[in-house]
Amino acid sequence: MANARQSNFMALIVQKYGGSSVGNPERIKNVAKRVAKYRAKGDQIVVVVSAMSGVTDNLIKLAKEIMPLPTEREMDMLLATGEQTTIALTAMALHSLDLKAVSLTGSQAGIVTDDVHTKAKIQHIAPKQVHALLDAGNVVIVAGFQGQTSAGHITTLGRGGSDLTAIALAAALKADLCQIYTDVDGVYTADPRIVPGARKLDEISYDEMLELASLGAKVMQSRSVEFAKNFGVIFEVRSSLNDNPGTIVKEETKNMEDVVIRGVSLDKHQAKVTLVAVPDQPGVAARIFKALGDASINVDMIVQNISHGAGKPATDLSFTIDKPDLLKTRKVIDGFKAEIGYREAIADENIGKLSIVGVGMRSHSGVAAKMFETLAREGVNIEMISTSEIKISVVIELTKGEQAMKAVHAAFLE
Amino acid sequence: MANARQSNFMALIVQKYGGSSVGNPERIKNVAKRVAKYRAKGDQIVVVVSAMSGVTDNLIKLAKEIMPLPTEREMDMLLATGEQTTIALTAMALHSLDLKAVSLTGSQAGIVTDDVHTKAKIQHIAPKQVHALLDAGNVVIVAGFQGQTSAGHITTLGRGGSDLTAIALAAALKADLCQIYTDVDGVYTADPRIVPGARKLDEISYDEMLELASLGAKVMQSRSVEFAKNFGVIFEVRSSLNDNPGTIVKEETKNMEDVVIRGVSLDKHQAKVTLVAVPDQPGVAARIFKALGDASINVDMIVQNISHGAGKPATDLSFTIDKPDLLKTRKVIDGFKAEIGYREAIADENIGKLSIVGVGMRSHSGVAAKMFETLAREGVNIEMISTSEIKISVVIELTKGEQAMKAVHAAFLE
Repeated sequence: MANARQSNFMALIVQKYGGSSVGNPERIKNVAKRVAKYRAKGDQIVVVVSAMSGVTDNLIKLAKEIMPLPTEREMDMLLATGEQTTIALTAMALHSLDLKAVSLTGSQAGIVTDDVHTKAKIQHIAPKQVHALLDAGNVVIVAGFQGQTSAGHITTLGRGGSDLTAIALAAALKADLCQIYTDVDGVYTADPRIVPGARKLDEISYDEMLELASLGAKVMQSRSVEFAKNFGVIFEVRSSLNDNPGTIVKEETKNMEDVVIRGVSLDKHQAKVTLVAVPDQPGVAARIFKALGDASINVDMIVQNISHGAGKPATDLSFTIDKPDLLKTRKVIDGFKAEIGYREAIADENIGKLSIVGVGMRSHSGVAAKMFETLAREGVNIEMISTSEIKISVVIELTKGEQAMKAVHAAFLE
Repeated sequence: MANARQSNFMALIVQKYGGSSVGNPERIKNVAKRVAKYRAKGDQIVVVVSAMSGVTDNLIKLAKEIMPLPTEREMDMLLATGEQTTIALTAMALHSLDLKAVSLTGSQAGIVTDDVHTKAKIQHIAPKQVHALLDAGNVVIVAGFQGQTSAGHITTLGRGGSDLTAIALAAALKADLCQIYTDVDGVYTADPRIVPGARKLDEISYDEMLELASLGAKVMQSRSVEFAKNFGVIFEVRSSLNDNPGTIVKEETKNMEDVVIRGVSLDKHQAKVTLVAVPDQPGVAARIFKALGDASINVDMIVQNISHGAGKPATDLSFTIDKPDLLKTRKVIDGFKAEIGYREAIADENIGKLSIVGVGMRSHSGVAAKMFETLAREGVNIEMISTSEIKISVVIELTKGEQAMKAVHAAFLE
């Protein structure tokens, strides 16, 4: 990185390990061994860990046994225990290798967020404590996914929060390297569990990664990639199960454009909501999406069809949201039904969002046509379409998602 | 209490619920219902909760899979998650009853401790945040068993720590009432699960409760009773399963002395260590117990036999410690073996400590003789004896503990 911190010629490395990499004591010991290997070279290491796989889901289940829609401040109090458990165990694993190590909660690591509980945004990081502990010879283990408000309430960062913690810490600490360890070898042209012909990429641009991330490639959430892009944090996505080099994510370079399509992704985690017969008047859409935004519901695709029917002009408005937000979304749209006066709301959870991504798409025509032809040949109906400069996404029936993905991957990448 | 806080004529009540009272979501909901009943009367309520039963043991097991003797700062980081889970769930349960409630970790509640990890002592409590939340109409739920050092490290208070949190908070908040909810109806003359003739006591003095607590009556740890005595916190031990009045613990009153023996207790959680042939020189015992104290090992009974044998004078020195400290104790005594020059160390985990307690003992003679006779009649060998003004304790073989307890209870209390 440009501002690399070079005290005593040591590198400062931030390593992030996800839930499956720390899923049981044996795996936590393996993480410690890997950290020890880097530490033996004299590098300073900050380790960011997630909750052990399954732990967060169990906590959510427990909360829902108490109340169906748990209050969000308390949900954060509850979920924060997941990462706190992992940091303590990881520090112990390093101690058992005779390494100095100290664990820190998000609060203790100086991670200050806004007060939107369960989806907090990092406002700033005060890295003094982390630097002091590093300089005293410690490996510093930081709980991912969490922080505290300036008033001292515990918050969590929402999905993908641990990646964000790692990248934000790398920026704040001016780290030389940020490694995101996961259970895959890097970023693939498609999910190799679904598409046998998928290949690992050596490098990818922030923008391509962003489109893949926001489209459900399971490697990383878009907000972390966005953060890395904004702060120029070059990071590597790699496997915690072997020593293979991973995929480097960085600013776009010229030769990246030679490739038309970098990857294909399928997002199964969205639901589609259609408001039928919305009055076709100025300000109505703004009112709807402001209300959703105020409730911290992320809306992804939006499609509005032409007005139809006799009488007052009305239109159908469709949008997609994260499936877990569906209950909250229903509350919001029920809330403004009388005011806005749409006829009915229809939700469909059985959708998939299939996307192709590549910076080379800009300079090549006919990409969309080729994608739609491929889907037609497979008998897949397209329900919604959305495009950007480097991406084309379609919403299709969930059950045909994988078949469609394989066909599109074969058409562009095999 | 003398300094009762009487703003707006409401009572301020601290209620503490132990691990089995919050052992599953259903029980947590029951706790919330009980709190709601008090809240409906207009009282201000502070709820202190332990980890759900089994949770702490599972965390310890997890830690030991990482390293056999987990480092203590990280153990605290790990164990603190147990109570943090419960406070979040308890707050949610109150929210689902439409009550305002906010959970606070020990740190957030202003509980400042020394830095002896896993056995920290409360140094002071800054109750400002709790008062502010109460005054804003909240039930405040505080994580028991934990605090933070002035440098911001998370600490735990050791066994019985949640009771201590409740009593210390009651003192700091000048509460009108402190209720310790547990799975028994109050303090009994003996453990009713072992002694069928055991009776519940309506009241008991701090000193009697102290002796019972320190001797293994499972209701409360001695440090909490000591704290209550020092700060004049009158508290009630009662059941979370019914509405029966419990046992009031308070300063000794005159008519308490009419009862010779208040109760009989059996402690199965100690181990006996004997150092054989310790040189009989001034300063040796001091050296030994200073080293144990420095390692934060609580020594309970100490017995030194007369010097024996020819040559240099040497003596056998026996003491009892908490069983979980045995590994640490071995390290300490191995450490000074060369320096002190004892011949060998013998540990015995199969002991029980049987005690009788009562302020009336002071004014009645022959109590010890009656106890020893009873044990002799049962064929129970006495290995160590220790007495105080209101207590007589003997160490006996663990397997004969319950038989001995029943016999002594029958002799004095039935």
